[in-house]
Amino acid sequence: MKLADFLSSPFDAGERSGPEDRIVMSSRIRLARNLTGHSFPTWAKKNDRVKALEHIRPAVESLPQLDGAFSSSLDELNSMEKQTLVERHLISREHAAKGAGSGVVFNQDESICVMINEEDHLRMQVLKPGLQLAEAWADVDALDSALEGKLDYAFSDEFGYLTACPTNLGTAIRVSAMLHLPGLVLSEQITQIINSVTKLGHAVRGLYGEGTEAHGHVFQVSNQMTLGESEPQLVERLGKVVQQLIEHEENARATLLESKASTVYDQIGRAYGTLSNAHVVASKEAMNLLSLLRLGVDLEMFNGLDRGVIDELFLFTQPAHLQNQHSGKLGAEERDVLRAKMLRSRLKKVKRPHLPKNA
Amino acid sequence: MKLADFLSSPFDAGERSGPEDRIVMSSRIRLARNLTGHSFPTWAKKNDRVKALEHIRPAVESLPQLDGAFSSSLDELNSMEKQTLVERHLISREHAAKGAGSGVVFNQDESICVMINEEDHLRMQVLKPGLQLAEAWADVDALDSALEGKLDYAFSDEFGYLTACPTNLGTAIRVSAMLHLPGLVLSEQITQIINSVTKLGHAVRGLYGEGTEAHGHVFQVSNQMTLGESEPQLVERLGKVVQQLIEHEENARATLLESKASTVYDQIGRAYGTLSNAHVVASKEAMNLLSLLRLGVDLEMFNGLDRGVIDELFLFTQPAHLQNQHSGKLGAEERDVLRAKMLRSRLKKVKRPHLPKNA
Repeated sequence: MKLADFLSSPFDAGERSGPEDRIVMSSRIRLARNLTGHSFPTWAKKNDRVKALEHIRPAVESLPQLDGAFSSSLDELNSMEKQTLVERHLISREHAAKGAGSGVVFNQDESICVMINEEDHLRMQVLKPGLQLAEAWADVDALDSALEGKLDYAFSDEFGYLTACPTNLGTAIRVSAMLHLPGLVLSEQITQIINSVTKLGHAVRGLYGEGTEAHGHVFQVSNQMTLGESEPQLVERLGKVVQQLIEHEENARATLLESKASTVYDQIGRAYGTLSNAHVVASKEAMNLLSLLRLGVDLEMFNGLDRGVIDELFLFTQPAHLQNQHSGKLGAEERDVLRAKMLRSRLKKVKRPHLPKNA
Repeated sequence: MKLADFLSSPFDAGERSGPEDRIVMSSRIRLARNLTGHSFPTWAKKNDRVKALEHIRPAVESLPQLDGAFSSSLDELNSMEKQTLVERHLISREHAAKGAGSGVVFNQDESICVMINEEDHLRMQVLKPGLQLAEAWADVDALDSALEGKLDYAFSDEFGYLTACPTNLGTAIRVSAMLHLPGLVLSEQITQIINSVTKLGHAVRGLYGEGTEAHGHVFQVSNQMTLGESEPQLVERLGKVVQQLIEHEENARATLLESKASTVYDQIGRAYGTLSNAHVVASKEAMNLLSLLRLGVDLEMFNGLDRGVIDELFLFTQPAHLQNQHSGKLGAEERDVLRAKMLRSRLKKVKRPHLPKNA
């Protein structure tokens, strides 16, 4: 199966919607696991990694959850394909740098994905639209149990699941949610909020994980600690933080609309005007303007523009996705022209925003 | 007659068009004249100025060219009305600061205007759309001759017409053209061009004359010297400079479209997108974006958008004109909101720009 065929299906807005998706773009839970009898991938020799992959991959492919899944060794993917998977949050940037001896398996709707021989032997994730942390936990727990029946996990009674990096020891779980927080950014409360959330033991990152900037007013919130609490407790605790952030964001939006309505409408209007008429648009600008359009959709300023379309454009305007739509390698400037063309065409039938009904 | 009634008539695009109006927005000739037996206005006492006005105004009003004209002493106009006349280039900013003892008379289509007791007793101007310097000269010359039959001009065989400021001595003529030069600005040639034109003895200023910035890529070019050449020679010489500037501007546009077409389309598209969707627009931004729209009209990127509409918006988005459309005094922020509303409404039926046919 070719990757292009697997990914070409357009997003179905209905399938990508979930609870609280005005603000929570997605929920994700990732578990790290390692096997006994194999060195951790980071210090294993290439031969050992290839052997481990040959041992793990069939076990993963045989799971009922991954029936009909895409499965590949990373040396079979070219750099553009790898970058595409990074942009879809299916593999990490670090994993994209790997070749023979590492692999990836994910199902048709991309909700379940397993990286083999990234930093750990196994990194399995479940990704769901909107706020569905408990549901994601149930799915990844089932996946983990099914795999545990087929593979011999490295587990210590004292430390729990053993991981390559000690920060993952114990439950080896990362629970995260991707949040769209334009209200907190525009009202300049975001730094303060991030500080509070960080103090509570959670990490806040940009759209593409550790070390990335928060473009498009999108922030990823996740647990830092993996020891001392059970998985359901960690999931519940992050869920509470997310609920608080939703509340803060809703309040920030309400206050902005009371005190600075013109500025909010102005930014949304300009974002729409620019995206639907520009001829050169860089990736970062596209994300920031699409974010404002998403806010406009939340405020019911658009007729016939679905949140799903915007979330799709967030992804399709990324460099590798853009390149995939074009035969022949594009330079950065050509990509900016193509990105603008795609945005103009996609927004052609979207009418100008109007004021919200209660404005 | 109330000023508001006089000015309320909307521009008729047809009446405001003229030769070369792609680049030459208007042509203007102004003559300064003083009377014998009256002190120059700048050092006359108030009583003397009132007397001079009473002497001059009936003579001006009685001219056939000014039949049915608007005529007022400046103390009868409030500050908003005066500012409106400044924005229409009918009176200078200096004249707007005057009160009793100064006056203004102009005809219905605003092509002929006489300021009484500005810096000189008489400042008469003829304003024509497009490049019509010879026509403007013919009209202002006829106006001058007609007035000379009614008033006793101060004239010296050695110095020519006497003026309050020695830089106007002699012919006391200012010949000027308002040029739209986005090509030279976008290609960063404008500074060099202005330097050359200045070296040839001409002045280059912004839209609102001496000491004003060039917003909206609009530049006023005029003669500096008033001595040593006849009026027709001065008019012809400025005409040649304008012809050269037209050529440079056309070349700059052609080169831009060859080498940086995407950037040009991008800027025009963004200007349209912003003007038709923003909710807060400052005067300076409006002028700069309208200028890009005007370039887009020249490049035939718009269906159903007339150059006259843009030139009208250039004027109607100025602070006093905007204030005139609203009862109750507006602050600067409220004006920016009203300006944006007016622009959105005016551009509502204008469709998105498309690429030029030969692109």
